[in-house]
Amino acid sequence: MNPTQETMHPSEIRALCRAGTLTGQTAGLAGGYVQANMMILPQAQAFDFLLFCQRNPKPCPLVEVLDAGCWSPVCAPGADLRSDLPGYCVYEHGVRTRELNDIADLWRDDLVSFLLGCSFSFEEALIRDGIALRHVQEKRNVAMYKTSIPCRAAGAMKGSMVVSMRPIKAADIARAVEITARFPQVHGAPLHVGHPAGIGIEDLAAPDFGDAVAVHDDELPVFWACGVTPQYVAELSRLPFCITHAAGKMLVTDLLTSEAGG
Amino acid sequence: MNPTQETMHPSEIRALCRAGTLTGQTAGLAGGYVQANMMILPQAQAFDFLLFCQRNPKPCPLVEVLDAGCWSPVCAPGADLRSDLPGYCVYEHGVRTRELNDIADLWRDDLVSFLLGCSFSFEEALIRDGIALRHVQEKRNVAMYKTSIPCRAAGAMKGSMVVSMRPIKAADIARAVEITARFPQVHGAPLHVGHPAGIGIEDLAAPDFGDAVAVHDDELPVFWACGVTPQYVAELSRLPFCITHAAGKMLVTDLLTSEAGG
Repeated sequence: MNPTQETMHPSEIRALCRAGTLTGQTAGLAGGYVQANMMILPQAQAFDFLLFCQRNPKPCPLVEVLDAGCWSPVCAPGADLRSDLPGYCVYEHGVRTRELNDIADLWRDDLVSFLLGCSFSFEEALIRDGIALRHVQEKRNVAMYKTSIPCRAAGAMKGSMVVSMRPIKAADIARAVEITARFPQVHGAPLHVGHPAGIGIEDLAAPDFGDAVAVHDDELPVFWACGVTPQYVAELSRLPFCITHAAGKMLVTDLLTSEAGG
Repeated sequence: MNPTQETMHPSEIRALCRAGTLTGQTAGLAGGYVQANMMILPQAQAFDFLLFCQRNPKPCPLVEVLDAGCWSPVCAPGADLRSDLPGYCVYEHGVRTRELNDIADLWRDDLVSFLLGCSFSFEEALIRDGIALRHVQEKRNVAMYKTSIPCRAAGAMKGSMVVSMRPIKAADIARAVEITARFPQVHGAPLHVGHPAGIGIEDLAAPDFGDAVAVHDDELPVFWACGVTPQYVAELSRLPFCITHAAGKMLVTDLLTSEAGG
Protein backbone atom coordinates (compact mmCIF):
# COMPACT_ATOMS: atom_id res chain seq x y z
CA MET A 1 0.00 0.00 0.00
CA ASN A 2 1.23 3.43 -0.92
CA PRO A 3 1.32 5.40 2.37
CA THR A 4 -0.21 8.45 0.69
CA GLN A 5 -3.36 6.40 -0.04
CA GLU A 6 -3.98 6.33 3.71
CA THR A 7 -4.55 10.08 3.74
CA MET A 8 -6.12 10.49 0.30
CA HIS A 9 -9.66 11.83 -0.03
CA PRO A 10 -12.28 9.16 -0.88
CA SER A 11 -12.82 10.71 -4.33
CA GLU A 12 -9.12 10.23 -5.11
CA ILE A 13 -9.27 6.57 -4.01
CA ARG A 14 -12.32 6.04 -6.24
CA ALA A 15 -10.54 7.69 -9.18
CA LEU A 16 -7.62 5.26 -8.75
CA CYS A 17 -10.09 2.35 -8.84
CA ARG A 18 -11.77 3.76 -11.95
CA ALA A 19 -8.40 4.10 -13.69
CA GLY A 20 -7.55 0.48 -12.84
CA THR A 21 -4.54 1.59 -10.74
CA LEU A 22 -5.96 0.39 -7.40
CA THR A 23 -7.16 -3.24 -7.46
CA GLY A 24 -6.31 -4.33 -3.88
CA GLN A 25 -8.11 -4.18 -0.53
CA THR A 26 -9.30 -0.87 0.91
CA ALA A 27 -8.60 -1.52 4.63
CA GLY A 28 -6.70 1.45 6.05
CA LEU A 29 -7.28 3.71 3.04
CA ALA A 30 -8.83 7.20 3.39
CA GLY A 31 -8.81 7.08 7.20
CA GLY A 32 -11.83 8.64 8.91
CA TYR A 33 -14.28 7.85 6.09
CA VAL A 34 -16.99 5.16 6.07
CA GLN A 35 -16.45 2.19 3.76
CA ALA A 36 -19.41 0.18 2.51
CA ASN A 37 -20.21 -3.38 1.47
CA MET A 38 -22.19 -3.58 -1.77
CA MET A 39 -24.91 -5.88 -3.13
CA ILE A 40 -26.49 -5.35 -6.55
CA LEU A 41 -29.67 -7.27 -7.48
CA PRO A 42 -32.35 -7.19 -10.16
CA GLN A 43 -35.47 -5.27 -9.13
CA ALA A 44 -37.43 -8.56 -9.07
CA GLN A 45 -35.45 -9.63 -5.98
CA ALA A 46 -34.90 -6.16 -4.51
CA PHE A 47 -38.02 -6.04 -2.31
CA ASP A 48 -37.13 -9.34 -0.61
CA PHE A 49 -33.57 -8.15 -0.05
CA LEU A 50 -34.62 -4.75 1.31
CA LEU A 51 -37.10 -6.47 3.62
CA PHE A 52 -34.35 -8.89 4.73
CA CYS A 53 -32.17 -5.90 5.67
CA GLN A 54 -35.07 -4.23 7.52
CA ARG A 55 -35.67 -7.43 9.50
CA ASN A 56 -31.96 -8.06 10.21
CA PRO A 57 -30.46 -4.63 10.88
CA LYS A 58 -27.46 -5.88 12.89
CA PRO A 59 -25.84 -7.88 10.06
CA CYS A 60 -27.37 -5.70 7.30
CA PRO A 61 -27.12 -2.01 8.34
CA LEU A 62 -28.24 -0.04 5.28
CA VAL A 63 -26.16 3.02 4.39
CA GLU A 64 -28.02 3.71 1.14
CA VAL A 65 -30.28 2.02 -1.42
CA LEU A 66 -30.23 3.46 -4.93
CA ASP A 67 -33.11 3.71 -7.39
CA ALA A 68 -33.26 0.95 -10.00
CA GLY A 69 -30.74 1.60 -12.77
CA CYS A 70 -28.91 4.30 -10.80
CA TRP A 71 -25.15 3.89 -10.14
CA SER A 72 -24.42 7.27 -8.55
CA PRO A 73 -24.84 7.21 -4.75
CA VAL A 74 -25.60 10.22 -2.56
CA CYS A 75 -22.96 9.09 -0.03
CA ALA A 76 -20.16 9.32 -2.63
CA PRO A 77 -20.78 12.32 -4.92
CA GLY A 78 -19.44 11.82 -8.42
CA ALA A 79 -18.88 8.09 -7.91
CA ASP A 80 -19.79 5.41 -10.46
CA LEU A 81 -20.57 2.14 -8.63
CA ARG A 82 -19.75 0.21 -11.81
CA SER A 83 -16.05 1.09 -11.73
CA ASP A 84 -15.12 2.84 -8.47
CA LEU A 85 -14.56 -0.23 -6.27
CA PRO A 86 -11.28 -2.14 -6.61
CA GLY A 87 -13.06 -5.44 -7.39
CA TYR A 88 -16.43 -7.15 -7.89
CA CYS A 89 -17.81 -10.71 -7.70
CA VAL A 90 -20.61 -11.97 -9.95
CA TYR A 91 -22.91 -14.73 -8.64
CA GLU A 92 -25.32 -16.79 -10.75
CA HIS A 93 -27.79 -19.12 -9.03
CA GLY A 94 -25.75 -18.94 -5.83
CA VAL A 95 -22.41 -19.76 -7.49
CA ARG A 96 -19.57 -17.24 -7.87
CA THR A 97 -18.83 -17.26 -11.59
CA ARG A 98 -16.53 -14.27 -12.12
CA GLU A 99 -14.31 -11.72 -10.34
CA LEU A 100 -13.93 -8.43 -12.23
CA ASN A 101 -12.48 -4.92 -11.79
CA ASP A 102 -15.32 -3.20 -13.66
CA ILE A 103 -18.95 -4.16 -14.23
CA ALA A 104 -20.03 -1.53 -16.79
CA ASP A 105 -20.56 -4.28 -19.40
CA LEU A 106 -22.97 -6.13 -17.07
CA TRP A 107 -25.07 -3.10 -16.14
CA ARG A 108 -28.84 -3.26 -16.66
CA ASP A 109 -31.55 -0.67 -16.01
CA ASP A 110 -33.33 -3.00 -13.56
CA LEU A 111 -30.37 -3.38 -11.17
CA VAL A 112 -30.79 -2.01 -7.62
CA SER A 113 -27.63 -1.25 -5.60
CA PHE A 114 -27.51 -1.65 -1.81
CA LEU A 115 -24.67 -0.15 0.27
CA LEU A 116 -24.22 -1.62 3.77
CA GLY A 117 -22.14 -0.55 6.76
CA CYS A 118 -18.79 -2.25 7.33
CA SER A 119 -16.91 -2.85 10.55
CA PHE A 120 -13.86 -0.77 9.55
CA SER A 121 -15.65 2.26 11.09
CA PHE A 122 -16.00 0.81 14.59
CA GLU A 123 -12.56 -0.82 14.43
CA GLU A 124 -11.05 2.65 13.98
CA ALA A 125 -12.93 3.81 17.10
CA LEU A 126 -11.76 0.80 19.16
CA ILE A 127 -8.13 1.34 18.19
CA ARG A 128 -8.38 5.08 18.86
CA ASP A 129 -9.60 4.20 22.36
CA GLY A 130 -6.59 1.96 23.01
CA ILE A 131 -8.21 -1.42 22.35
CA ALA A 132 -5.75 -3.27 20.11
CA LEU A 133 -7.13 -5.55 17.40
CA ARG A 134 -4.94 -8.57 16.68
CA HIS A 135 -5.93 -9.04 13.03
CA VAL A 136 -5.05 -5.41 12.31
CA GLN A 137 -1.70 -5.71 14.12
CA GLU A 138 -0.95 -8.91 12.18
CA LYS A 139 -2.27 -7.41 8.90
CA ARG A 140 -4.74 -10.27 8.43
CA ASN A 141 -8.39 -10.37 7.46
CA VAL A 142 -10.76 -10.57 10.46
CA ALA A 143 -11.90 -14.15 11.31
CA MET A 144 -15.52 -14.83 10.30
CA TYR A 145 -17.74 -17.79 11.18
CA LYS A 146 -21.09 -19.18 10.08
CA THR A 147 -23.33 -19.53 13.16
CA SER A 148 -26.54 -21.21 14.25
CA ILE A 149 -28.18 -17.80 14.89
CA PRO A 150 -31.10 -17.67 12.44
CA CYS A 151 -31.79 -14.54 10.41
CA ARG A 152 -35.42 -13.55 10.01
CA ALA A 153 -36.34 -14.75 6.51
CA ALA A 154 -37.86 -12.42 3.89
CA GLY A 155 -39.45 -14.06 0.84
CA ALA A 156 -36.73 -16.01 -0.97
CA MET A 157 -33.97 -14.72 1.35
CA LYS A 158 -33.25 -17.05 4.25
CA GLY A 159 -30.23 -18.34 6.18
CA SER A 160 -28.19 -17.93 9.33
CA MET A 161 -25.92 -15.17 10.52
CA VAL A 162 -22.19 -14.78 9.89
CA VAL A 163 -20.22 -13.18 12.74
CA SER A 164 -16.75 -11.65 12.94
CA MET A 165 -14.59 -12.44 15.99
CA ARG A 166 -12.08 -10.21 17.75
CA PRO A 167 -10.15 -11.37 20.85
CA ILE A 168 -10.63 -8.71 23.56
CA LYS A 169 -8.97 -8.58 27.01
CA ALA A 170 -11.48 -9.39 29.75
CA ALA A 171 -10.86 -5.97 31.31
CA ASP A 172 -11.68 -4.19 28.02
CA ILE A 173 -14.86 -6.04 27.05
CA ALA A 174 -17.35 -3.67 28.68
CA ARG A 175 -15.64 -0.69 27.05
CA ALA A 176 -15.59 -2.44 23.65
CA VAL A 177 -19.35 -3.00 24.00
CA GLU A 178 -19.93 0.66 24.90
CA ILE A 179 -17.84 1.94 21.99
CA THR A 180 -19.36 -0.31 19.30
CA ALA A 181 -22.91 0.26 20.61
CA ARG A 182 -22.43 3.87 19.48
CA PHE A 183 -22.33 2.57 15.87
CA PRO A 184 -25.78 1.07 15.24
CA GLN A 185 -25.31 1.78 11.53
CA VAL A 186 -22.23 -0.43 11.53
CA HIS A 187 -23.37 -3.63 13.29
CA GLY A 188 -23.53 -2.02 16.75
CA ALA A 189 -22.79 -3.87 20.00
CA PRO A 190 -21.56 -7.50 20.00
CA LEU A 191 -24.08 -10.36 19.65
CA HIS A 192 -22.20 -12.75 21.92
CA VAL A 193 -19.23 -12.75 24.31
CA GLY A 194 -17.25 -15.95 24.87
CA HIS A 195 -18.72 -19.49 24.56
CA PRO A 196 -18.44 -20.04 20.77
CA ALA A 197 -20.28 -23.39 21.00
CA GLY A 198 -23.39 -21.51 22.12
CA ILE A 199 -23.76 -20.03 18.63
CA GLY A 200 -22.72 -23.15 16.72
CA ILE A 201 -19.00 -22.43 16.26
CA GLU A 202 -17.05 -25.66 16.76
CA ASP A 203 -13.47 -24.57 16.19
CA LEU A 204 -12.24 -20.99 16.51
CA ALA A 205 -9.04 -22.02 14.72
CA ALA A 206 -11.00 -22.83 11.56
CA PRO A 207 -12.94 -19.72 10.45
CA ASP A 208 -15.29 -20.01 7.48
CA PHE A 209 -13.99 -16.75 5.99
CA GLY A 210 -10.89 -14.62 6.69
CA ASP A 211 -7.91 -15.63 8.82
CA ALA A 212 -7.67 -17.30 12.26
CA VAL A 213 -6.01 -15.34 15.08
CA ALA A 214 -4.90 -16.55 18.51
CA VAL A 215 -7.06 -15.90 21.59
CA HIS A 216 -4.79 -15.41 24.62
CA ASP A 217 -5.47 -16.54 28.21
CA ASP A 218 -6.52 -13.06 29.41
CA GLU A 219 -8.90 -12.60 26.46
CA LEU A 220 -12.34 -13.76 25.39
CA PRO A 221 -13.56 -14.14 21.82
CA VAL A 222 -16.13 -11.39 21.14
CA PHE A 223 -18.57 -11.83 18.25
CA TRP A 224 -20.18 -9.07 16.15
CA ALA A 225 -22.81 -9.42 13.40
CA CYS A 226 -20.94 -9.42 10.09
CA GLY A 227 -21.60 -7.74 6.75
CA VAL A 228 -20.75 -10.99 4.94
CA THR A 229 -24.18 -12.26 6.11
CA PRO A 230 -26.16 -10.84 3.17
CA GLN A 231 -23.70 -12.34 0.67
CA TYR A 232 -23.83 -15.71 2.41
CA VAL A 233 -27.64 -15.62 2.48
CA ALA A 234 -27.77 -14.59 -1.20
CA GLU A 235 -25.63 -17.64 -2.00
CA LEU A 236 -27.77 -19.98 0.14
CA SER A 237 -30.94 -18.56 -1.42
CA ARG A 238 -29.54 -19.23 -4.92
CA LEU A 239 -30.54 -15.82 -6.27
CA PRO A 240 -30.51 -15.96 -10.08
CA PHE A 241 -28.06 -13.06 -10.39
CA CYS A 242 -26.22 -10.66 -8.13
CA ILE A 243 -23.01 -8.63 -8.02
CA THR A 244 -21.12 -7.84 -4.81
CA HIS A 245 -17.90 -6.07 -3.87
CA ALA A 246 -14.95 -8.51 -3.78
CA ALA A 247 -13.79 -9.46 -0.25
CA GLY A 248 -12.15 -6.45 1.45
CA LYS A 249 -12.55 -4.28 -1.67
CA MET A 250 -15.14 -1.78 -0.47
CA LEU A 251 -16.72 1.41 -1.71
CA VAL A 252 -14.95 4.30 0.05
CA THR A 253 -17.71 6.88 0.72
CA ASP A 254 -17.53 10.58 1.56
CA LEU A 255 -19.39 9.97 4.87
CA LEU A 256 -17.27 10.70 7.91
CA THR A 257 -16.94 7.89 10.45
CA SER A 258 -17.82 10.47 13.09
CA GLU A 259 -21.23 10.93 11.40
CA ALA A 260 -21.91 7.18 11.47
CA GLY A 261 -21.73 7.01 15.27
CA GLY A 262 -19.18 7.80 17.98
CA MET B 1 -63.91 5.38 27.06
CA ASN B 2 -64.40 2.56 29.53
CA PRO B 3 -61.71 3.08 32.20
CA THR B 4 -60.93 -0.65 32.27
CA GLN B 5 -59.78 -0.38 28.65
CA GLU B 6 -56.89 1.78 29.87
CA THR B 7 -55.44 -1.20 31.74
CA MET B 8 -56.51 -4.01 29.39
CA HIS B 9 -53.90 -6.18 27.68
CA PRO B 10 -53.39 -5.35 23.97
CA SER B 11 -54.86 -8.73 22.98
CA GLU B 12 -58.08 -7.83 24.79
CA ILE B 13 -58.27 -4.45 23.01
CA ARG B 14 -57.76 -6.21 19.67
CA ALA B 15 -60.51 -8.73 20.51
CA LEU B 16 -62.93 -5.84 21.19
CA CYS B 17 -62.07 -4.38 17.78
CA ARG B 18 -62.57 -7.76 16.11
CA ALA B 19 -65.96 -8.14 17.78
CA GLY B 20 -66.99 -4.69 16.56
CA THR B 21 -67.38 -3.44 20.17
CA LEU B 22 -64.51 -0.92 20.02
CA THR B 23 -64.69 1.46 17.05
CA GLY B 24 -63.24 4.65 18.57
CA GLN B 25 -59.73 6.06 18.96
CA THR B 26 -57.03 4.08 20.79
CA ALA B 27 -55.20 6.99 22.53
CA GLY B 28 -54.76 6.11 26.21
CA LEU B 29 -55.75 2.44 25.80
CA ALA B 30 -53.49 -0.40 27.01
CA GLY B 31 -51.00 1.96 28.69
CA GLY B 32 -47.34 1.00 28.37
CA TYR B 33 -47.73 -0.74 25.00
CA VAL B 34 -46.60 0.54 21.59
CA GLN B 35 -49.32 1.55 19.14
CA ALA B 36 -48.65 1.51 15.39
CA ASN B 37 -49.75 3.37 12.27
CA MET B 38 -50.60 1.03 9.38
CA MET B 39 -50.23 1.22 5.58
CA ILE B 40 -51.26 -1.66 3.31
CA LEU B 41 -50.20 -1.62 -0.36
CA PRO B 42 -50.10 -4.02 -3.30
CA GLN B 43 -46.72 -5.71 -3.78
CA ALA B 44 -46.23 -3.73 -7.02
CA GLN B 45 -45.83 -0.52 -4.96
CA ALA B 46 -44.27 -2.11 -1.87
CA PHE B 47 -40.63 -1.75 -2.89
CA ASP B 48 -41.01 1.99 -3.49
CA PHE B 49 -42.79 2.41 -0.15
CA LEU B 50 -40.22 0.36 1.78
CA LEU B 51 -37.43 2.36 0.14
CA PHE B 52 -39.27 5.59 1.02
CA CYS B 53 -39.32 4.50 4.69
CA GLN B 54 -35.64 3.55 4.56
CA ARG B 55 -34.78 6.99 3.17
CA ASN B 56 -37.06 8.91 5.58
CA PRO B 57 -36.73 7.12 8.92
CA LYS B 58 -37.83 10.08 11.07
CA PRO B 59 -41.40 10.35 9.70
CA CYS B 60 -41.54 6.63 8.74
CA PRO B 61 -40.01 4.54 11.56
CA LEU B 62 -40.71 0.91 10.63
CA VAL B 63 -41.92 -1.35 13.43
CA GLU B 64 -42.60 -4.33 11.16
CA VAL B 65 -43.18 -5.18 7.49
CA LEU B 66 -45.17 -8.36 6.80
CA ASP B 67 -44.74 -10.80 3.93
CA ALA B 68 -47.12 -10.30 1.00
CA GLY B 69 -50.53 -11.78 1.81
CA CYS B 70 -49.77 -12.13 5.54
CA TRP B 71 -52.04 -10.42 8.08
CA SER B 72 -50.56 -11.82 11.30
CA PRO B 73 -47.75 -9.61 12.69
CA VAL B 74 -44.93 -10.78 14.97
CA CYS B 75 -45.41 -7.70 17.18
CA ALA B 76 -49.02 -8.67 18.03
CA PRO B 77 -49.28 -12.47 18.37
CA GLY B 78 -52.68 -13.82 17.38
CA ALA B 79 -53.76 -10.54 15.76
CA ASP B 80 -55.56 -10.29 12.42
CA LEU B 81 -54.70 -6.95 10.79
CA ARG B 82 -57.92 -7.16 8.72
CA SER B 83 -60.19 -6.77 11.77
CA ASP B 84 -58.18 -5.89 14.89
CA LEU B 85 -57.97 -2.10 14.43
CA PRO B 86 -61.00 0.04 15.32
CA GLY B 87 -61.19 1.58 11.83
CA TYR B 88 -59.66 1.65 8.34
CA CYS B 89 -59.55 4.07 5.38
CA VAL B 90 -59.44 2.92 1.77
CA TYR B 91 -57.74 5.16 -0.83
CA GLU B 92 -58.03 4.78 -4.61
CA HIS B 93 -55.80 6.91 -6.87
CA GLY B 94 -55.08 9.25 -3.98
CA VAL B 95 -58.71 9.76 -2.96
CA ARG B 96 -60.25 8.42 0.25
CA THR B 97 -63.21 6.40 -0.95
CA ARG B 98 -64.35 4.48 2.14
CA GLU B 99 -64.02 4.21 5.94
CA LEU B 100 -64.60 0.68 7.30
CA ASN B 101 -64.35 -1.30 10.55
CA ASP B 102 -63.16 -4.49 8.84
CA ILE B 103 -61.27 -5.08 5.60
CA ALA B 104 -61.51 -8.88 5.30
CA ASP B 105 -63.61 -8.54 2.12
CA LEU B 106 -60.92 -6.39 0.49
CA TRP B 107 -58.02 -8.69 1.31
CA ARG B 108 -55.77 -9.92 -1.53
CA ASP B 109 -52.76 -12.21 -1.52
CA ASP B 110 -50.53 -9.48 -2.99
CA LEU B 111 -51.10 -6.97 -0.17
CA VAL B 112 -48.07 -5.99 1.96
CA SER B 113 -48.72 -4.49 5.42
CA PHE B 114 -46.38 -1.90 6.96
CA LEU B 115 -46.56 -1.01 10.67
CA LEU B 116 -44.95 2.31 11.68
CA GLY B 117 -44.12 3.83 15.05
CA CYS B 118 -46.53 6.39 16.52
CA SER B 119 -45.87 9.28 18.87
CA PHE B 120 -48.07 7.92 21.69
CA SER B 121 -44.97 6.07 22.98
CA PHE B 122 -42.82 9.17 23.46
CA GLU B 123 -45.76 11.24 24.72
CA GLU B 124 -46.14 8.76 27.59
CA ALA B 125 -42.46 9.24 28.42
CA LEU B 126 -42.72 13.06 28.33
CA ILE B 127 -45.74 13.06 30.65
CA ARG B 128 -44.09 10.56 33.01
CA ASP B 129 -41.17 12.98 33.24
CA GLY B 130 -43.44 15.87 34.21
CA ILE B 131 -43.69 17.60 30.81
CA ALA B 132 -47.40 18.32 30.34
CA LEU B 133 -48.88 18.05 26.84
CA ARG B 134 -51.70 20.50 26.18
CA HIS B 135 -53.57 18.39 23.59
CA VAL B 136 -53.63 15.45 26.03
CA GLN B 137 -54.87 17.67 28.89
CA GLU B 138 -57.55 19.11 26.62
CA LYS B 139 -58.39 15.66 25.17
CA ARG B 140 -57.78 16.85 21.61
CA ASN B 141 -55.92 15.39 18.68
CA VAL B 142 -52.35 16.67 18.32
CA ALA B 143 -51.97 19.58 15.82
CA MET B 144 -50.33 18.52 12.54
CA TYR B 145 -49.01 20.69 9.70
CA LYS B 146 -47.79 20.17 6.14
CA THR B 147 -44.28 21.66 5.83
CA SER B 148 -41.80 22.70 3.17
CA ILE B 149 -39.29 20.08 4.41
CA PRO B 150 -38.85 17.73 1.45
CA CYS B 151 -38.84 13.97 1.94
CA ARG B 152 -36.30 12.00 -0.07
CA ALA B 153 -38.30 10.54 -2.97
CA ALA B 154 -38.35 6.80 -3.79
CA GLY B 155 -39.74 5.79 -7.18
CA ALA B 156 -43.36 6.92 -7.33
CA MET B 157 -43.39 8.08 -3.69
CA LYS B 158 -42.58 11.80 -3.31
CA GLY B 159 -43.77 14.71 -1.19
CA SER B 160 -42.98 16.85 1.82
CA MET B 161 -43.04 16.10 5.52
CA VAL B 162 -45.93 16.44 7.94
CA VAL B 163 -44.98 17.47 11.50
CA SER B 164 -46.82 17.37 14.80
CA MET B 165 -46.52 20.38 17.14
CA ARG B 166 -46.50 20.43 20.93
CA PRO B 167 -46.09 23.68 22.92
CA ILE B 168 -43.22 23.16 25.41
CA LYS B 169 -42.04 25.56 28.13
CA ALA B 170 -38.70 27.14 27.20
CA ALA B 171 -37.16 25.67 30.36
CA ASP B 172 -38.26 22.13 29.39
CA ILE B 173 -37.22 22.09 25.74
CA ALA B 174 -33.76 20.62 26.22
CA ARG B 175 -35.21 17.85 28.42
CA ALA B 176 -37.98 17.14 25.86
CA VAL B 177 -35.29 16.74 23.19
CA GLU B 178 -33.27 14.38 25.37
CA ILE B 179 -36.31 12.24 26.22
CA THR B 180 -37.65 11.91 22.68
CA ALA B 181 -34.17 11.32 21.23
CA ARG B 182 -34.26 8.03 23.19
CA PHE B 183 -37.09 6.87 20.87
CA PRO B 184 -35.51 6.68 17.40
CA GLN B 185 -38.12 4.06 16.48
CA VAL B 186 -40.89 6.59 17.22
CA HIS B 187 -39.78 9.72 15.30
CA GLY B 188 -36.93 10.54 17.74
CA ALA B 189 -35.80 14.08 18.59
CA PRO B 190 -37.65 17.15 17.24
CA LEU B 191 -36.91 18.41 13.72
CA HIS B 192 -37.39 22.08 14.56
CA VAL B 193 -37.86 24.31 17.63
CA GLY B 194 -39.76 27.61 17.28
CA HIS B 195 -39.93 29.70 14.06
CA PRO B 196 -42.79 27.94 12.20
CA ALA B 197 -42.28 30.10 9.08
CA GLY B 198 -38.84 28.50 8.65
CA ILE B 199 -40.51 25.20 7.71
CA GLY B 200 -43.34 26.68 5.68
CA ILE B 201 -46.04 26.88 8.38
CA GLU B 202 -47.96 30.14 7.96
CA ASP B 203 -50.52 29.94 10.75
CA LEU B 204 -50.18 27.78 13.86
CA ALA B 205 -53.87 28.33 14.58
CA ALA B 206 -54.83 26.51 11.36
CA PRO B 207 -53.37 23.00 11.43
CA ASP B 208 -53.78 20.81 8.34
CA PHE B 209 -54.78 17.79 10.50
CA GLY B 210 -55.86 17.45 14.13
CA ASP B 211 -56.81 20.29 16.48
CA ALA B 212 -55.17 23.68 17.18
CA VAL B 213 -53.91 24.34 20.74
CA ALA B 214 -52.72 27.60 22.29
CA VAL B 215 -48.98 28.36 22.61
CA HIS B 216 -48.41 30.42 25.80
CA ASP B 217 -45.89 33.22 26.27
CA ASP B 218 -43.41 31.06 28.19
CA GLU B 219 -43.57 28.28 25.57
CA LEU B 220 -42.21 27.60 22.10
CA PRO B 221 -43.86 25.42 19.46
CA VAL B 222 -41.75 22.25 19.05
CA PHE B 223 -42.09 20.18 15.87
CA TRP B 224 -41.60 16.43 15.48
CA ALA B 225 -41.71 14.32 12.30
CA CYS B 226 -45.21 12.84 12.07
CA GLY B 227 -46.48 9.40 11.12
CA VAL B 228 -49.16 11.00 8.93
CA THR B 229 -46.37 11.74 6.42
CA PRO B 230 -46.54 8.37 4.61
CA GLN B 231 -50.34 8.68 4.25
CA TYR B 232 -50.02 12.23 2.95
CA VAL B 233 -47.30 11.18 0.49
CA ALA B 234 -49.37 8.19 -0.64
CA GLU B 235 -52.23 10.57 -1.39
CA LEU B 236 -49.97 13.04 -3.23
CA SER B 237 -48.41 10.17 -5.22
CA ARG B 238 -51.90 8.96 -6.25
CA LEU B 239 -51.15 5.32 -5.51
CA PRO B 240 -53.74 3.15 -7.27
CA PHE B 241 -54.86 1.43 -4.04
CA CYS B 242 -53.97 1.49 -0.37
CA ILE B 243 -55.56 0.89 3.01
CA THR B 244 -54.51 2.75 6.19
CA HIS B 245 -55.67 2.83 9.81
CA ALA B 246 -58.31 5.54 10.35
CA ALA B 247 -57.03 8.67 12.17
CA GLY B 248 -56.23 7.86 15.81
CA LYS B 249 -57.41 4.24 15.43
CA MET B 250 -54.14 2.38 15.74
CA LEU B 251 -52.97 -1.20 16.02
CA VAL B 252 -52.23 -1.85 19.71
CA THR B 253 -49.16 -4.15 19.71
CA ASP B 254 -47.70 -6.40 22.41
CA LEU B 255 -44.39 -4.47 22.30
CA LEU B 256 -43.65 -2.62 25.52
CA THR B 257 -42.95 1.10 25.22
CA SER B 258 -39.89 0.48 27.36
CA GLU B 259 -38.52 -1.82 24.62
CA ALA B 260 -39.01 0.87 21.94
CA GLY B 261 -36.65 3.32 23.67
CA GLY B 262 -36.37 4.99 27.05
